[in-house]
Amino acid sequence: MAEQKQNKGTERKERTSRPRSPRPAREKTQGDENIVFIGQKPVKSYVIACLIHFSSGSPKVVIKARGRAIARAVDTAELLRRAFLKDAQLESISMCTEEVEREGGRKANVSAIEITLTKP
Amino acid sequence: MAEQKQNKGTERKERTSRPRSPRPAREKTQGDENIVFIGQKPVKSYVIACLIHFSSGSPKVVIKARGRAIARAVDTAELLRRAFLKDAQLESISMCTEEVEREGGRKANVSAIEITLTKP
Repeated sequence: MAEQKQNKGTERKERTSRPRSPRPAREKTQGDENIVFIGQKPVKSYVIACLIHFSSGSPKVVIKARGRAIARAVDTAELLRRAFLKDAQLESISMCTEEVEREGGRKANVSAIEITLTKP
Repeated sequence: MAEQKQNKGTERKERTSRPRSPRPAREKTQGDENIVFIGQKPVKSYVIACLIHFSSGSPKVVIKARGRAIARAVDTAELLRRAFLKDAQLESISMCTEEVEREGGRKANVSAIEITLTKP
């Protein structure tokens, strides 16, 4: 699953000299949160990805999407809560605008959503 | 604008005998909130609808969408806050699942989102 990113505190890699992001390294290892990025696959794929994160012991899963995939992110969270994990709780929903570079160097604004689910 | 609904306390209609929803009638007239339902039109149409609500003195606008229109609802809220009303604040975002009847009487579940914006 290429669109799935897993942050494990126990498997923290040594910081390399390659500059990656302006975010400090400490922030990456703070939480146990696992992120599921929503793309073009069917909703079920992302529901399964969330279930894998929860079943591997993670108390929190963050679903992230931008552009048209936003609707699929909401579908994923709702399907998960309705059909698979009825005790999963919606911790927060936030939205923002991200700047992406299109072909030819043009910059475009795209809306993004972040849904955080927790399992008690 | 067919997809735009305005609740005005001053233009409250007499309650008919036709059963409409389990929600009590009192609740409908409590707030000054105006609702913009997102459909298939371009995002700008809904941004303008929100601006009309705010400029007519409403302190709160609720953007509602379901299914694929959810992405457009987020776009509307973000474009409004980014380009037109920079002091507009995001009061809340909520999501739920609604049951709709398809052709042939089949029932289907569809995700829905509700974004509440306020202007101080």
